[in-house]
Amino acid sequence: MDLRAFIDEMELLAPPSLAEEFDCGRIGLVVEGRPDISRVCCALDATPYVVQQAAGAGADMLVVHHTPLWTPVTALTGPIATLMRQMLTAEMNIYVMHTNFDRAPGGVNDALAELISLSDTTPLSLGLVGSCPLTIAEISQRLGGNIRVWGELPSLSRLAIVAGSGFDPVLLAEAKERGADAFLSAELRHAVARAAPLPCIEATHYALEAPAMRRLAARKGWQYIDDPPKIHPVV
Amino acid sequence: MDLRAFIDEMELLAPPSLAEEFDCGRIGLVVEGRPDISRVCCALDATPYVVQQAAGAGADMLVVHHTPLWTPVTALTGPIATLMRQMLTAEMNIYVMHTNFDRAPGGVNDALAELISLSDTTPLSLGLVGSCPLTIAEISQRLGGNIRVWGELPSLSRLAIVAGSGFDPVLLAEAKERGADAFLSAELRHAVARAAPLPCIEATHYALEAPAMRRLAARKGWQYIDDPPKIHPVV
Amino acid sequence: MDLRAFIDEMELLAPPSLAEEFDCGRIGLVVEGRPDISRVCCALDATPYVVQQAAGAGADMLVVHHTPLWTPVTALTGPIATLMRQMLTAEMNIYVMHTNFDRAPGGVNDALAELISLSDTTPLSLGLVGSCPLTIAEISQRLGGNIRVWGELPSLSRLAIVAGSGFDPVLLAEAKERGADAFLSAELRHAVARAAPLPCIEATHYALEAPAMRRLAARKGWQYIDDPPKIHPVV
Amino acid sequence: MDLRAFIDEMELLAPPSLAEEFDCGRIGLVVEGRPDISRVCCALDATPYVVQQAAGAGADMLVVHHTPLWTPVTALTGPIATLMRQMLTAEMNIYVMHTNFDRAPGGVNDALAELISLSDTTPLSLGLVGSCPLTIAEISQRLGGNIRVWGELPSLSRLAIVAGSGFDPVLLAEAKERGADAFLSAELRHAVARAAPLPCIEATHYALEAPAMRRLAARKGWQYIDDPPKIHPVV
Amino acid sequence: MDLRAFIDEMELLAPPSLAEEFDCGRIGLVVEGRPDISRVCCALDATPYVVQQAAGAGADMLVVHHTPLWTPVTALTGPIATLMRQMLTAEMNIYVMHTNFDRAPGGVNDALAELISLSDTTPLSLGLVGSCPLTIAEISQRLGGNIRVWGELPSLSRLAIVAGSGFDPVLLAEAKERGADAFLSAELRHAVARAAPLPCIEATHYALEAPAMRRLAARKGWQYIDDPPKIHPVV
Amino acid sequence: MDLRAFIDEMELLAPPSLAEEFDCGRIGLVVEGRPDISRVCCALDATPYVVQQAAGAGADMLVVHHTPLWTPVTALTGPIATLMRQMLTAEMNIYVMHTNFDRAPGGVNDALAELISLSDTTPLSLGLVGSCPLTIAEISQRLGGNIRVWGELPSLSRLAIVAGSGFDPVLLAEAKERGADAFLSAELRHAVARAAPLPCIEATHYALEAPAMRRLAARKGWQYIDDPPKIHPVV
Repeated sequence: MDLRAFIDEMELLAPPSLAEEFDCGRIGLVVEGRPDISRVCCALDATPYVVQQAAGAGADMLVVHHTPLWTPVTALTGPIATLMRQMLTAEMNIYVMHTNFDRAPGGVNDALAELISLSDTTPLSLGLVGSCPLTIAEISQRLGGNIRVWGELPSLSRLAIVAGSGFDPVLLAEAKERGADAFLSAELRHAVARAAPLPCIEATHYALEAPAMRRLAARKGWQYIDDPPKIHPVV
Repeated sequence: MDLRAFIDEMELLAPPSLAEEFDCGRIGLVVEGRPDISRVCCALDATPYVVQQAAGAGADMLVVHHTPLWTPVTALTGPIATLMRQMLTAEMNIYVMHTNFDRAPGGVNDALAELISLSDTTPLSLGLVGSCPLTIAEISQRLGGNIRVWGELPSLSRLAIVAGSGFDPVLLAEAKERGADAFLSAELRHAVARAAPLPCIEATHYALEAPAMRRLAARKGWQYIDDPPKIHPVV
Repeated sequence: MDLRAFIDEMELLAPPSLAEEFDCGRIGLVVEGRPDISRVCCALDATPYVVQQAAGAGADMLVVHHTPLWTPVTALTGPIATLMRQMLTAEMNIYVMHTNFDRAPGGVNDALAELISLSDTTPLSLGLVGSCPLTIAEISQRLGGNIRVWGELPSLSRLAIVAGSGFDPVLLAEAKERGADAFLSAELRHAVARAAPLPCIEATHYALEAPAMRRLAARKGWQYIDDPPKIHPVV
Repeated sequence: MDLRAFIDEMELLAPPSLAEEFDCGRIGLVVEGRPDISRVCCALDATPYVVQQAAGAGADMLVVHHTPLWTPVTALTGPIATLMRQMLTAEMNIYVMHTNFDRAPGGVNDALAELISLSDTTPLSLGLVGSCPLTIAEISQRLGGNIRVWGELPSLSRLAIVAGSGFDPVLLAEAKERGADAFLSAELRHAVARAAPLPCIEATHYALEAPAMRRLAARKGWQYIDDPPKIHPVV
Repeated sequence: MDLRAFIDEMELLAPPSLAEEFDCGRIGLVVEGRPDISRVCCALDATPYVVQQAAGAGADMLVVHHTPLWTPVTALTGPIATLMRQMLTAEMNIYVMHTNFDRAPGGVNDALAELISLSDTTPLSLGLVGSCPLTIAEISQRLGGNIRVWGELPSLSRLAIVAGSGFDPVLLAEAKERGADAFLSAELRHAVARAAPLPCIEATHYALEAPAMRRLAARKGWQYIDDPPKIHPVV
Repeated sequence: MDLRAFIDEMELLAPPSLAEEFDCGRIGLVVEGRPDISRVCCALDATPYVVQQAAGAGADMLVVHHTPLWTPVTALTGPIATLMRQMLTAEMNIYVMHTNFDRAPGGVNDALAELISLSDTTPLSLGLVGSCPLTIAEISQRLGGNIRVWGELPSLSRLAIVAGSGFDPVLLAEAKERGADAFLSAELRHAVARAAPLPCIEATHYALEAPAMRRLAARKGWQYIDDPPKIHPVV
């Protein structure tokens, strides 16, 4: 498939106009390789391991959620030089879908909702609220563990979810107002937890966002390359 | 003791000139109550529970690490109105020592180093590196649990510590260069973990900073009011 | 009356959407007290005297034109701590109507126009121009004195008025273009006076704005608390 | 005298380095005329009347306190075009001494102190505090009237003065701390008066600053052109 | 003709609303002279020579493309004082049409297109593209010489032109996309030339913009005052 | 030679501390390749031609004056992707010396001064002034032609030079004050030329800066890759 046609297809899936302003220049084609796409890989991040696997698989295109060039660069040295050399030498394209995919129908939040069997959902300004039939232990299992509950979890009839870093005071207040009993997201900071108006369920960023990329790969027939962070809780 | 004399004593302990610029106007006396100080309480945060306990104990002064008025306000409504009413009605003073206490000799980082028995320490631009005789399980125990290791922890001969939110790419690089084998701090974000040049040990903010306030209270003969966040790991 | 219902009523009277952008966060409920409103007081400013009188009168609500928390605060010390303690201890609410009330129909400028019997009025971008049947001595009498005329006052057939600090070069030019013979407002600065294209009548801020609060109190059956600045001209 | 020599003399009198940063580009030679100076006039402002008188007197140089070009211009139209035509056609130079003259020894504040017979003076960060042997009526008389006292004036043993617009909350606090009983300056705003920690004596800008220019002219043998604002109090 | 009527006529010709935002305050009447206009001169810049010629010709009005007061001034000294004295003393008006005239139908770009016989034109976001029947030598002749070609000029079937400084990477890309074979403008910088996607023809600013002013003068019956920069190529 | 040692040598030659602030992050090693340096090429710009030649010559290191990554990037697509692929695939290092080399003793300005035989030189805040024994035709010849003189060139006893884009009004004034008869630099804009206080000699950027890189290559025994812009004057 022609690169332009591939991009058009992706833009239908996750329209760039849905992205946050801070994503401007950081989504879409961020590394340009071969103009013809026959083999596509998919991952959450373009880590060295992911790029190596994709190159080994002969991929022309790697679709990821997080750009490897977030901070604007005026130099390619150290690890970023190594990574760019690997990509450019392999003539691999990198295509990024970030906050536009978070918000797209069937995107990151919807994939997470599906994974934990939410039903009867209503949207928040970011993420959504839905009825959850699972216990917290079942949620943890589906998300691969590494779950922490902050506060007392009375029940889980209505659960707010924001894939990514969604523990924002404004979002927490909105979720509570919409009837949520708990809030599931990643990267809960101390100051936010101290003033949280409802119990918080903290999972890893990877656990909440990778499902959407995995599901996308499955639907498209692409190879998904799994590279979760290695975390060991210590009792 | 006169309020002015109490402030002078605190400023010797944690000189305001050591504070970060963002702390300007947010440390020192942030709520003014009675001019005479006879009973002092101490805590990490001025949470509703802490303020209630201090008021119940008849405190004239509450010394904390985190100001209850971080974001500048033009209105006192909702929870902040409730908290301020409680403090002002009780005529309690609130005194804040934040980044100036982080950096002070015998301050937040030093208390943490002592708690986990670091020796042979050298300073970083924030925090320090030292030799650690403990196992990771022993560290977790001393910090009250809720520890997570990101990456493979080969050994712990030299450990970098930053009490608070210290997982910054520049600090991580500095720690590695100074010979650290691992980095202990709070609030590790996904993007930082992905590019961390050494294994990260993530504890809670409270676990890393409360020891300094507890030790200060003990030395001064003040009442320490413990109010750790309630966290339940789910397997 | 329920606090929410009271606020709804006030917002009809002086819609927040009419306010200048700089009033964002500085109007509406700026101090939250009891949720039920049975006794309302009203004043121009929340001065210590006004707050004391209102507390003495058992007010649940004090409606003022100028917020006591204009400059955003990260500390409550000195006079502002004293004032906030007085309000919060009394569980009094403070509701502010500022530039939204200046602009509201029947608001600050309209009350001033009525007080000095202006007729046949047309709006300026701030304030208005109208025909004035009074002599300057009569105007002064109605405004409580402390009037100063800058320049030669030929006649008063058409008078521009801006309650508050309205001596702005752009407004003065607009007033002249709309046929005003003189401009009545407060706080005339030397540099503006030097280049004023028409004679200026300077009254006090209080004299120009208090009438609207007094009239509002009368209409609503609230107690108006008068606290004009004490000014003594010296010959 | 050569223009350059005249400027050197003025810079000794009121060193540009004493000026506030906002005066950058707005003091010194602001309109360039003839290179030889034989006749000098002096005034507070370069008003149309002043410029006309100076031109009529054949002045090569007009020394003023306030620049006629405060706001940067990209067009010369209307009154400013008329004024500039008058100056440029007459080939008159305009020299401005502003905040540098306020602060200079023997400058604006010192001239005011002398006029009202202050003794035993100590400097403030702007202006000064001194012992005043006069009654308020005598002060008013020396300043040409148009004086207003805000608050109760108990005594006048120590008086703070700031020629110009000096009613700033920080300055007021400083003056009180230095033992002042009252504060004399110009352009007192409502919000500042409401919170003033000591009684305020408000005079006109002209009354406080013109004495320095008049005294300078007398000492140098220049012609002083008086042009006070026409103010009529209305009882 | 009355000055107001003259301005109205000019605003029809080059509507101020077409101007770039940076022209705000820098177009229209920038120096105000006599209110009656009987003799008009026209030039590209208000240079000393041009102003002298216009004054000698008894002009009431000088119409130019570039304002003599681009940088906002707080002083009139040196060459700008001399120029303003010349204009103001002569009571000459200066009227500026800048980017509004660039964009106006029949304006700067259209006059240039006509001069070099472009046909079948389509607009760019600035300037236009058209078919050019001339050789490069003929173009140079019509523009008065001082032409430089950067890169290899294969043919000139379609030529992009931007009168003024139009060598901007974004405009160059747009021109190429619209089928241009070469790009004619002024002030080509090294960095832009290095990455230019099509050959660049560099002429002087004067050569590209003066034709519009000359043509305007001819149509209106005004005197055009020619003052091209003196340039001598050295072989 | 080791990369680190090579960098140390370059930093002695052109200390980074001499660079303008805008060069921060844009000088030094901007593309990292092999850690061992045995073959070095040198050029003014890292153009596609230059990079291709350097790669063909087996260079490990390319030293240039202008960075290929001036504008910070968050994507590598189009020509910059092609260029970066070429460099990274070849594992070539790119080292940039920009304003630090302009200012270094024996740097860009000194090389230019030597090329046109300036003697008795004194520094300007950028560039220098010196006595020039050459005719303008000789200067043109040494600079490879494409010279333009703006204004009348009376004599050339003292010549100011600024390699690069040095036609700045402040620099021109400084040069005149230091006794220069003419000013040699690149990229003269119309507005600057109109107000230039002395005649300007405009050469190309390449002609003024390449000599320093060529001379550096000669001294170091590196290969200089010449890639001047192709310019054809049209008479």
